[in-house]
Amino acid sequence: MTYTVITGASSGIGYETALAFAKRGKNLILTARRENNLEELKSKVNEMNADIDVIIMTADLAENDQVYDFYERTKEYEVETWINNAGFGNFDSISDQELPKIEKMLRLNNEALTILSSLYVRDYAEKAGTQLINVSSGGGYTIVGGAVTYCATKFFVSAFTEGLAQELQAKGSPMQAKVLAPAATETEFAERSMDTEQFSYEENVPQFHTAQEMAQFMLDLYESDKVLGIVDGETYEFHLRDPLYPYVNRSRN
Amino acid sequence: MTYTVITGASSGIGYETALAFAKRGKNLILTARRENNLEELKSKVNEMNADIDVIIMTADLAENDQVYDFYERTKEYEVETWINNAGFGNFDSISDQELPKIEKMLRLNNEALTILSSLYVRDYAEKAGTQLINVSSGGGYTIVGGAVTYCATKFFVSAFTEGLAQELQAKGSPMQAKVLAPAATETEFAERSMDTEQFSYEENVPQFHTAQEMAQFMLDLYESDKVLGIVDGETYEFHLRDPLYPYVNRSRN
Repeated sequence: MTYTVITGASSGIGYETALAFAKRGKNLILTARRENNLEELKSKVNEMNADIDVIIMTADLAENDQVYDFYERTKEYEVETWINNAGFGNFDSISDQELPKIEKMLRLNNEALTILSSLYVRDYAEKAGTQLINVSSGGGYTIVGGAVTYCATKFFVSAFTEGLAQELQAKGSPMQAKVLAPAATETEFAERSMDTEQFSYEENVPQFHTAQEMAQFMLDLYESDKVLGIVDGETYEFHLRDPLYPYVNRSRN
Repeated sequence: MTYTVITGASSGIGYETALAFAKRGKNLILTARRENNLEELKSKVNEMNADIDVIIMTADLAENDQVYDFYERTKEYEVETWINNAGFGNFDSISDQELPKIEKMLRLNNEALTILSSLYVRDYAEKAGTQLINVSSGGGYTIVGGAVTYCATKFFVSAFTEGLAQELQAKGSPMQAKVLAPAATETEFAERSMDTEQFSYEENVPQFHTAQEMAQFMLDLYESDKVLGIVDGETYEFHLRDPLYPYVNRSRN
């Protein structure tokens, strides 16, 4: 029996990805801070298909010790796919940004993702059929003024994951590493980025995808052999692509 | 009386940059963990020019509380130029890397740099003649296999600093933000990246710059109006350039 791990599954792209993978018959390990949301999601999955095993593990992945503890708890299960989706944004100029929130963003978006990716690769890289999918952003390829530090965290995710994909391919390891790079998606992202209670994508954003649409793109990426699934910021079309960043092998060792 | 702050000044590019700025008559605030090295550097500067004021502030910038404390201590001085040079690398595949070292690298290369940049910009962005220079790497523009996580931290630095430069220009702020992107440079970098005692650049690296050469490039960047100073990884020539990463302004607010 194998599982798909999804971090940040309590809402948005993570929540809809859980439903989409459940529809494919995948057992799930779901993590987020909000246990109620995960319980509600578990009920929804099991109403749809009672045979799917859904394991809930609450954790705040902005806290390092909880990151390691969460990975430890997953070790009693066989993980076929690991999706690092947890992350949040911040919309402020660098001169205005609030540093406690920024530190938390770096810990969650980069440090937790690096730790979990490294541990999963260490344990599963040589196992056929495994995948690691990290959620980056269009902002991991184009800097957005007013959200620069958030974009820097996503440049990190894109470079880290594209580089990992290349390292795995160079070694001939069967695990596939992939990057999903959404553009604007209707989730709690805007509210958290702007520290606001209520935000209407319909009224404020000229183009966006729903979280359900992004979950479908996640499945398209999962089923493809490409490393990158990216939403074009102009057309809002989804493209499966080879890595975008230049890559060289270190010649000396 | 104004000062140039240099982090990671106990050796390598930071050490030589301190000497180069001292030759231009700049007063210095130097930080690193190793007080002895900073004291030796201070003596060297004052033998050269006794009029230069050199302030030593030891700190381990991989520790967040020390980052804030260090910034507080600089506040009694007027800082004309702030150079975030402190950082280290790691040469390992992602499946082999040691996570305690990786966490420390993320804290120093990204979190400390983000905190110090944000605080300096907040206090000085509107002051004419000020500059913030962040040291990235050629690995902040090209992923190097076997050093992927290190490169990801430098993609962060490049995107963060290029984005900051664009934000400052858009606001018409006088502060200039700049990125220095060295290629291989003969410093303690290789030893720390490989956790080895002794490494000969002469014997192992086909092309590299000395730390003195990089300090001269740092000065060239300081004196130019360009955002990026980058060493070409093929020719090892140094180029002053406009930002490399695409940048868009967030239309909604």
